[in-house]
Amino acid sequence: MLNYLLDRTFAALADPTRRAMVDRLAQGPATVSELAGPLPMSLPAVMLHLKVLEDCGLVKSQKAGRVRTCRIEPQMLSEAEKWVSERRRMWERNLDRLDAYLDQNET
Amino acid sequence: MLNYLLDRTFAALADPTRRAMVDRLAQGPATVSELAGPLPMSLPAVMLHLKVLEDCGLVKSQKAGRVRTCRIEPQMLSEAEKWVSERRRMWERNLDRLDAYLDQNET
Repeated sequence: MLNYLLDRTFAALADPTRRAMVDRLAQGPATVSELAGPLPMSLPAVMLHLKVLEDCGLVKSQKAGRVRTCRIEPQMLSEAEKWVSERRRMWERNLDRLDAYLDQNET
Repeated sequence: MLNYLLDRTFAALADPTRRAMVDRLAQGPATVSELAGPLPMSLPAVMLHLKVLEDCGLVKSQKAGRVRTCRIEPQMLSEAEKWVSERRRMWERNLDRLDAYLDQNET
């Protein structure tokens, strides 16, 4: 289940437009028009990217009247960060062990 | 340039087989056969996944005789981690500011 959500989260982050949207929403909630403002594409195209971000759980949106407001859902952002940082630290520990081994065997 | 590499890095991480390969290599270098061992697919399929990991710069491999050894290249792992963790922290700071604002205006 989480593996499947990680697939979709990393795939969602693999697009510069969607990363720009996450970047904007990390600074606070925004309406779809506010999100679309700086993006060089049509509103329907922005809505499609928003759907990808919502499907993986990175973003939630809510409609009030005619205005849809989007916000970050932090859990999948944390899960993606955790996955990468754990591997990076694992790699560093392995490097440290190798260094220690080489130091020990230095004569 | 970095944006383009981030696209490819996140896309590379969006596949569970490639994440399993990164996970294995985070524990230390491995030959292609060692990488392929636990994976339920043919060696050519593993080689294709390896190519994706090499193209984005997450992994490097080197051939010595008939044996190809793969290892993590840590920079793109760090870049991907940094991108996600910066947005997560940005989001948290924004939440803290909102909390502070609400506390201040509480009567």
